Amino acid sequence: MIDFKKAMTDTADAVDEVLDDLLQRMEGPENQLLEAMRYSALGGGKRVRPFLVVASADLFGVSRSRSLRAAAAIEMIHCYSLIHDDLPAMDDDKLRRGRPTVHIKFDEATAILAGDALLTKAFEVLASEATHSDARVRADLCLAYAKAAGDRGMVGGQMLDLVAQDHELDVPEITRLQRMKTGELISVSCEAGCILGKVSAETRTVLRGYAHDIGLAFQIADDLLDVEGTAEQVGKATGKDEAAGKATFVSLLGADRARKQANLLVEQAVNHLNIFDERAVLLQELARFIVNRRS
Amino acid sequence: MIDFKKAMTDTADAVDEVLDDLLQRMEGPENQLLEAMRYSALGGGKRVRPFLVVASADLFGVSRSRSLRAAAAIEMIHCYSLIHDDLPAMDDDKLRRGRPTVHIKFDEATAILAGDALLTKAFEVLASEATHSDARVRADLCLAYAKAAGDRGMVGGQMLDLVAQDHELDVPEITRLQRMKTGELISVSCEAGCILGKVSAETRTVLRGYAHDIGLAFQIADDLLDVEGTAEQVGKATGKDEAAGKATFVSLLGADRARKQANLLVEQAVNHLNIFDERAVLLQELARFIVNRRS
Repeated sequence: MIDFKKAMTDTADAVDEVLDDLLQRMEGPENQLLEAMRYSALGGGKRVRPFLVVASADLFGVSRSRSLRAAAAIEMIHCYSLIHDDLPAMDDDKLRRGRPTVHIKFDEATAILAGDALLTKAFEVLASEATHSDARVRADLCLAYAKAAGDRGMVGGQMLDLVAQDHELDVPEITRLQRMKTGELISVSCEAGCILGKVSAETRTVLRGYAHDIGLAFQIADDLLDVEGTAEQVGKATGKDEAAGKATFVSLLGADRARKQANLLVEQAVNHLNIFDERAVLLQELARFIVNRRS
Repeated sequence: MIDFKKAMTDTADAVDEVLDDLLQRMEGPENQLLEAMRYSALGGGKRVRPFLVVASADLFGVSRSRSLRAAAAIEMIHCYSLIHDDLPAMDDDKLRRGRPTVHIKFDEATAILAGDALLTKAFEVLASEATHSDARVRADLCLAYAKAAGDRGMVGGQMLDLVAQDHELDVPEITRLQRMKTGELISVSCEAGCILGKVSAETRTVLRGYAHDIGLAFQIADDLLDVEGTAEQVGKATGKDEAAGKATFVSLLGADRARKQANLLVEQAVNHLNIFDERAVLLQELARFIVNRRS
């Protein structure tokens, strides 16, 4: 039987090693930038997105030396988005992954720059020959990550989230917001495995369906944790959405229906992968983990 | 005789058209993000970096449809850096290119996101097939831009600038800081022409020498304008370095020696290009323009 928890820990450790290597300290006073980047990127976390990259790439026999670089790049983008999201002008959060946020630990200017540098570094990593000898794969990875992270993806979703604070959203609007804000980065994690593995359009579509479902389930689970979890458990402030009067899946559907919806999405996600052999079990387990996690 | 001023205006207009096309407005309330990106990227400016991309690429017969996309991408990165630099936590500037800065015109959160999205969009543009049919060119462009803009380049230079405010820098230290903060982006503009033109390593080295010299001359000219220009003329607050007690080329060398140094660098830059035919005249004129400009 495949040990899912061990697979997740092993991948997280391997990604940490690659991140540690990619984020080398510098001589000179500008090293403060690297310290802030490292503080954010090596600060723990579940490493769900890197796991998706590696597990998807594994399906298609991609070497770990390649998939771990693409995994490190997605984590850099995720971490940059957390740093900027936590800034006083944005969500103004002081706690992340159980530790002070970057602008608290360092200062605001350093946090802005560390986010910028992590985003930039992600593309440096993807475009480097060490990630793949085929230049088309490298260019395709850059393109896919940029689309997922940009104005039509993650950043657009964050903008939507900010302007939405002034008016009530309904379920289709929340779904669209979350699809952009968190779903696109989850999708591109699976897509990275497909690009590295040079798979057919049909196979990509299957993975896309899986990613779409777990992305939404992930967000619903997050909303549930925000309502039901404590800061100590979750590693960041909770109850914030409710306090801000923000519409979420839970506020709109109620906790019970939201949980049912998340479970339904997970079963759907699992079923997408039935066409693969037992190597897909890890991705199926991840889908279940996403809604059952406690942090 | 080549009309340098007309060439600059024509390139700026052509880049504006491409930027306008690449930064399409969106349906929905998240369009505020695009408005902020457009406000910054289409807000005038001398377009020195795009001009360098196009004029370098012209040397090697690259089609304008390609070089203008690489030019738009470099301007996106430049504009993102200005938006983030102007934030209250950074330089806290209210005026840029004669207009309110992005966080004044919109708000701080929108400014942070617009900068993030412009940086991301630059890589989307570079990695797209429309920029070049050869994937190696696309991947190489992504790699070169990321290195120039990242922790060892522009962002590293900004970090150095921030931490340097606490202690006196000497000329070699200032040179290194400016090399990272503004020089790398100027260098990669010329490098982009070389990558698009698939030129030899020797030719690249020549262009690199030119870019190195004009990069430094550009910064010295900027320091001189900060001392000698008015806000109305320059389009942004002046006298800031002196007020902040910040070491610059002018404070360290004095205005006369600084101006002499800038002129010397320009002559050196011009001489690098003598091996090319008359097509290099535009780049030579640009070098002269850089130290003679009044804004």
